Amino acid sequence: MGAPLEFWFEFASTYSYPAAHAVEAAARARGVAVKWRSFLLGPIFAAQGWNDSPFNIYPAKGKYMWRDLARICAAQDLPLKKPSLFPRGSLLAARIACRFADEAWVGAFVRRVYSANFADDLDIASPFVVGKILSDIGQVPAEIMKAAQAQDSKDAFRAQADRAVVLGIIGAPSFVVDAEVFWGGDRLEAALGWASGKRGVAEL
Amino acid sequence: MGAPLEFWFEFASTYSYPAAHAVEAAARARGVAVKWRSFLLGPIFAAQGWNDSPFNIYPAKGKYMWRDLARICAAQDLPLKKPSLFPRGSLLAARIACRFADEAWVGAFVRRVYSANFADDLDIASPFVVGKILSDIGQVPAEIMKAAQAQDSKDAFRAQADRAVVLGIIGAPSFVVDAEVFWGGDRLEAALGWASGKRGVAEL
Repeated sequence: MGAPLEFWFEFASTYSYPAAHAVEAAARARGVAVKWRSFLLGPIFAAQGWNDSPFNIYPAKGKYMWRDLARICAAQDLPLKKPSLFPRGSLLAARIACRFADEAWVGAFVRRVYSANFADDLDIASPFVVGKILSDIGQVPAEIMKAAQAQDSKDAFRAQADRAVVLGIIGAPSFVVDAEVFWGGDRLEAALGWASGKRGVAEL
Repeated sequence: MGAPLEFWFEFASTYSYPAAHAVEAAARARGVAVKWRSFLLGPIFAAQGWNDSPFNIYPAKGKYMWRDLARICAAQDLPLKKPSLFPRGSLLAARIACRFADEAWVGAFVRRVYSANFADDLDIASPFVVGKILSDIGQVPAEIMKAAQAQDSKDAFRAQADRAVVLGIIGAPSFVVDAEVFWGGDRLEAALGWASGKRGVAEL
């Protein structure tokens, strides 16, 4: 068993959608454990002077990204519908994914929240949408939501977001292995290689 | 023979360095022809409000990029030395690559200019450095440089840069197949797949 792979994601992040659907199976095939790490990009973007997604601030980047995402989703046989609101708030779902990161059901929860946002155009900020997903995977929504919004859960989520900054994470999805950061879904294989011991890159 | 792959590059672009070294061999293995397309990122960045490389404007992105580049170069067995000046001007070399894009030696020229910048920390804006590279590959520097700086060559280079904007290119390296843009060295395989006929992605 190699080092675990931390999967850092934010539910509004477009490229995190296909990555979230791919990461667990790809890691399992390599014998690498996945650690789910939800966080918010807002504070990280704000530190760079952005008050919105860079895909909205820079329309040429946004246009490219949606086309690129369509190709990636097609290659993964994942449905994609451009959300009517982008980026969508996702604090409740992100806190749930943080509070219950070690539960066996968290992968299924994460994938369904992404699909709600990017395949079904549902408002993932809504407790009704999040509650329905929790029921669908056999959890009791009221209990989960209550626990995720307790003060210690909020504090733990905030601490996790702070750790993203310390690690040098600049976007989502990011894969982290022993503090080595790989940004972008296209870096999954490189990160898995790192987890399996293919390292040896000198400092510049 | 599938559609040709256009390789859009700028000599100051870090990620274009390993891509320039990989593209011809990878394309040949798939039976895809490479069209070399040099351009300048300056005007494209200026249109987004940047007067410098985003890797300099956003230090967290820059720090990540250099580490990521080191990993990519290590995987390709390419030497990498952080240039003492970044980004470096490269107008002369870029005009040469444009004017002589269809010559058999252009691939070797492009790779050597990149290596001068990112492996040997040489000033690729200097006619002496560019001239040495031309001699090394068997060309007559004075003739090549004179032709590349003739008015029609300057005009052709400017027209090529304008075409980058029309295509929706937002960074380098980019691969273009039948006007479909793939941004980033990590998109080479996807672009080659597109050139070989793997398409069929719906508009969003």
